[in-house]
Amino acid sequence: MMDQSVTEAVAKLRELEEKRAALYHAMGVVNYDALTAAPKDTAEGRGRTMGVLSGMEYELTTGAETVAVLDVLMAHIAELDEQTAREVQLMKKANEQISRIPAEEYTAYSVLVNDAQSVWQRAKNENDFAAFEPYLEKIVAYNRTFAGYYNPDMKPYDALLNEYEEGMTMEVLDGFFENLRAVIVPLLRRVMAAPAIDDSFLHRSYPIEKQRVLSDMLMEVLGIDRSHCSIGETEHPFTDGFNNKDVRITTHYHEHELASSMYSVIHEGGHAIYELGCEDRFNYTAAAGGVSMGIHESQSRFFENIIGRSRAFIGFLFPKIREMFPEQLADVDAEMFYRAVNKAEPSLIRTESDELTYALHIMVRYEIEKRLIDGSLAVHDLPAAWNALYREYLGIDVPDDRSGCLQDSHWSGGAIGYFPSYALGSAYGAQMLHCMEAELPGLWEQVAAGNLAPVKEWLREHIHRYASLYAPGELFERACGKFDAAHFAAYLTDKYTALYGLKD
Amino acid sequence: MMDQSVTEAVAKLRELEEKRAALYHAMGVVNYDALTAAPKDTAEGRGRTMGVLSGMEYELTTGAETVAVLDVLMAHIAELDEQTAREVQLMKKANEQISRIPAEEYTAYSVLVNDAQSVWQRAKNENDFAAFEPYLEKIVAYNRTFAGYYNPDMKPYDALLNEYEEGMTMEVLDGFFENLRAVIVPLLRRVMAAPAIDDSFLHRSYPIEKQRVLSDMLMEVLGIDRSHCSIGETEHPFTDGFNNKDVRITTHYHEHELASSMYSVIHEGGHAIYELGCEDRFNYTAAAGGVSMGIHESQSRFFENIIGRSRAFIGFLFPKIREMFPEQLADVDAEMFYRAVNKAEPSLIRTESDELTYALHIMVRYEIEKRLIDGSLAVHDLPAAWNALYREYLGIDVPDDRSGCLQDSHWSGGAIGYFPSYALGSAYGAQMLHCMEAELPGLWEQVAAGNLAPVKEWLREHIHRYASLYAPGELFERACGKFDAAHFAAYLTDKYTALYGLKD
Repeated sequence: MMDQSVTEAVAKLRELEEKRAALYHAMGVVNYDALTAAPKDTAEGRGRTMGVLSGMEYELTTGAETVAVLDVLMAHIAELDEQTAREVQLMKKANEQISRIPAEEYTAYSVLVNDAQSVWQRAKNENDFAAFEPYLEKIVAYNRTFAGYYNPDMKPYDALLNEYEEGMTMEVLDGFFENLRAVIVPLLRRVMAAPAIDDSFLHRSYPIEKQRVLSDMLMEVLGIDRSHCSIGETEHPFTDGFNNKDVRITTHYHEHELASSMYSVIHEGGHAIYELGCEDRFNYTAAAGGVSMGIHESQSRFFENIIGRSRAFIGFLFPKIREMFPEQLADVDAEMFYRAVNKAEPSLIRTESDELTYALHIMVRYEIEKRLIDGSLAVHDLPAAWNALYREYLGIDVPDDRSGCLQDSHWSGGAIGYFPSYALGSAYGAQMLHCMEAELPGLWEQVAAGNLAPVKEWLREHIHRYASLYAPGELFERACGKFDAAHFAAYLTDKYTALYGLKD
Repeated sequence: MMDQSVTEAVAKLRELEEKRAALYHAMGVVNYDALTAAPKDTAEGRGRTMGVLSGMEYELTTGAETVAVLDVLMAHIAELDEQTAREVQLMKKANEQISRIPAEEYTAYSVLVNDAQSVWQRAKNENDFAAFEPYLEKIVAYNRTFAGYYNPDMKPYDALLNEYEEGMTMEVLDGFFENLRAVIVPLLRRVMAAPAIDDSFLHRSYPIEKQRVLSDMLMEVLGIDRSHCSIGETEHPFTDGFNNKDVRITTHYHEHELASSMYSVIHEGGHAIYELGCEDRFNYTAAAGGVSMGIHESQSRFFENIIGRSRAFIGFLFPKIREMFPEQLADVDAEMFYRAVNKAEPSLIRTESDELTYALHIMVRYEIEKRLIDGSLAVHDLPAAWNALYREYLGIDVPDDRSGCLQDSHWSGGAIGYFPSYALGSAYGAQMLHCMEAELPGLWEQVAAGNLAPVKEWLREHIHRYASLYAPGELFERACGKFDAAHFAAYLTDKYTALYGLKD
C-alpha cells in the first residue's frame, strides 16, 4: 500500500494536470478560433489573453506546489502504476524545461507567436517576405535561446528536434536523409525519363460546394464520427485535438485542384483517428493525446499515402467520386485516377507534392533550419537559400516567396525542428504496413471493399490507444520492432517502379 | 499626489483586471466556439475546462490579494480619477457578489450551464421539454440561491433583475409593463380590426447563399468594419464582444423568411456598434464593454426597429434588396416592403415578432420568471403556464414547446432576469430618438440617403464611448434626461396609427 503522502501527492498532481489541461484547451480553442473564425484585425486582444493564459500555465508548471508534489512522487516512482509514473515523468520534464525559461521570455514568446501568425498570413497573401522577416528573426532567436534552456548539453538544433521527437538528433537525421536521397534522387530521375502520367483531369473545374460534399463522404469512409470531429476551412490544413472526444480538422479548397483538399482531409483524418482513438483514461492528464510529431505524422501519412493513394482504395473510392463529378470525370477510369494521384514530379509546394518527392521538400526545410539555428544563415538570406536548395534538390526554380519560403505555417507558429517528423512519419508508416500485412493477410481485399476497420483496429491496438503512455521510440518498437528506414525505401522503389513500368 | 501605496494598489488592480479579462475572453471564445463550430458531442471536455477557468476567475476575484488592493483603494476612492474609481467600484461589487457564492457552487454552476446549453439545443430540436426540465430546475434553484447571495435584503427576483439592469425592481417593472399593456392591447385590437397587411412576398424562396450576401451588404450600410466584426451562424442569433476590436455577431437563415435574418443582422449589428464604439481606454478593465443589458438592447433595437423598420431607411434599402432578389420582389415596391416588415399581429416566436407585440412576449417571460423564482410555479408546469399566458396576452395557442417555452436560449445559459431588458431597451431607444430628432434636424433625410453616420455619431458621443463608466441610469440621464416610458407609448401609437390608417 502507498503511504498517505504519496496518495495525497497523486491527487494533487491530478488536480494540477487538470488545470493545465484546461489552460491548454482554452489556448487551443482561442488559436483555433483565430485561424478559422476570428475577424482579421483581432490579434492584439488575443495576444494579451494568450500572454496571460500562458503565464498562468507557466506558474502552474513551475510553482512551488508542483515542485513539492513532483519531489514526493519522483522519490516513490517505483511504487506508482505505469500511467501515473509516466504522468509524473512528463510533468517533471515539462517542469524542468519550462523552469529554465524565464517567465517574461515565455510570456513574450507566446505574444510574439500569436502576432506572427497573423503577419505571416498576410505576408503570404501579399508575397511580402519583408513583412514577416522581423517576426521570424525574433522567433529564431527565441528558439535558439530556448534550445539552451531545454538542454544545454545538446547542440541547439538537436535540443529543438528532441521537443518534437524524443531522442532524435542531427546525426541520425543526416544519415536517414542521406540514405533516402540516395534512393529517391535516382528513382526520380528514372521516373522523369519515363512517359509522363496525365493528371490534367484533376485540374478541371470542381465546384467547392461539391468538394465539401466529397469531404463529408471521405470522413464517412474513414469512419470518423462527426459528432466528435468537425471540418473547418483554413489557409493551411491542420488538426487540433482538445481531448479524445473533441477533435477538429481543417482543409483548404481550390476549384481546380481536386486532389488537394481530398488528400488534406484524408491526411488530417489520420491525425484525427489517432486523437480519437486514445483511451479515455489519458484525457486531461500530461499523457493525453498523440505522443510525438513523428508518430502523429506516421498516422496521417499512412492514411493519406499508403491507404489513400493505394490502387485498392482508389478502386473502391473512384466510382463514388465519379458519381459526384460525372462531367469532369466522364473520360477517366479508376486506373487513370490512381496513376494521376500518384504522379511524381518536382514541384514547388510541399503539401501538394507527391509521395516520392515529398521527402526532398522536407530536406530543404531541414537544411534551412539547421543553418538558421546554428547562425550560418541569416533570416534575411532565407529566400535565397530556399530557392537555391529547391534548385539543387528538386531541380526547379522558385518564382516567388509565396510559393517558396512563405508557404508553410510552421515557422510563424514557432515550430522549428518539426519538419523532419513528416519524413520520419512516412518511414514509420511504411514499416507499420510491413507488420500489418504480415498480421492481416486479407488486408488489401478489405481496403478494396472500402472496409478500413481492420487497418484502424490494428493502429488503435498498437498505437492510438496508448496516447502518450510510452515514449515514441518505445511505442514504435512495441508495435513493429526496431525502426529501419529501409522499409520506406523499398516501399517507394516498389511502388514507383511498378507505376512507371521501370525496368531493371 | 497620490501616496506610494495607492499608486502601487492601482497598478496591482490593473494587473488583476487584465488577468480577469483574459479568463473572460478565453471563456467567451470557448463558448462562442461551442455555439458556432464545435462538433456536437463535445460538451464534457468543455464543461471541465469552463469549470477550471471559472474557478480561476473566482480565485482572482475573491483572493486575499484582491481584497487587500480593494481595501486600500476604497479608502482612497476620492483621490482616484473617474475611470479608476469606477473600476474599483465594479471590482468591489464583483468581489462582494462572488465572495458570497461558495467556490464549489460557482464552479458547479458553470459546468451545469455549459451542459444545459447543449441539452437545450437538442431539446428544442426534438421538441422534448422533459429532457431540458431537470437542467432548468437546477438553474432556477441556483439562481434563487445566488439571488440571496447577491443581495439578501432584496426580493430574490429583484436581486436577479439588478444583475442585468442596476436598480431595476419588480415594482418599477410592474408599473412599466402595466402602462405599456394599457396602450398596446387596445392599439393591437384596432390594428387587428383594420385591413390586414400583405407580407406574403417575404415568405417566397430566398436562397440562403443570397441572404448571406444581403448580410454583407447590411454590415456595410451599418458601417461595421468586418476586420473587427464577423458574422457566424447559430440557432439563436447573438453578439459577443471580447474587446472593442473583436466582436462577433451571429444570425440564422431561413429560406422562406427574408426578414428574419435581415433584422437579426441589424439587431446584432446594433449591439456590435455599441461594443466597437467603446473607447480603447476601457479594454481589459472591469469597466469594459456595454454597461447593462437594457442599454445594450436599446442600441440593438434602435437599429433594428427605429432605424431598420423606418420608412426612410426602407426607402433607401429596398432598391438594393430588389436588385439581389429581382424575381422574388418583381411585384413589390418600397412602400409595400415597409408595410410588410412592420405588419403587427399576435405570433408565437419572440425573435420573429413585430415591434408592437414584442413587449407582450416579454411580459409572458417576465411573469414566468417571477413565478419560477418565488416558487409559485414549478419548472415541470412551465409549458402549461407559458401556453396559458400566450393565450391571455396574445390570444393565441402554442402548438408545441419548440415554438413555446423552448424557443429562447436565455434560460439554458443561466440568464434569469434578462428578458425585461429587451422591453426597457425599446423604451430607452424611443426616448433617445426623441432627443436625437431635437438635436439633429436633418436626421431622417440622412437616413433616407443611407447615411447612418449622424445617428451612429450621436450614439457614440452619448452612449457607446463611455463603455461601463457610468451606471445605466446615470448614463441614460446624461444623454436624455429622466427616463419616461411615455415616449415609447407615443412612438408606437403614432407609428401604428399611421401605418394602419386608424382614425379618431
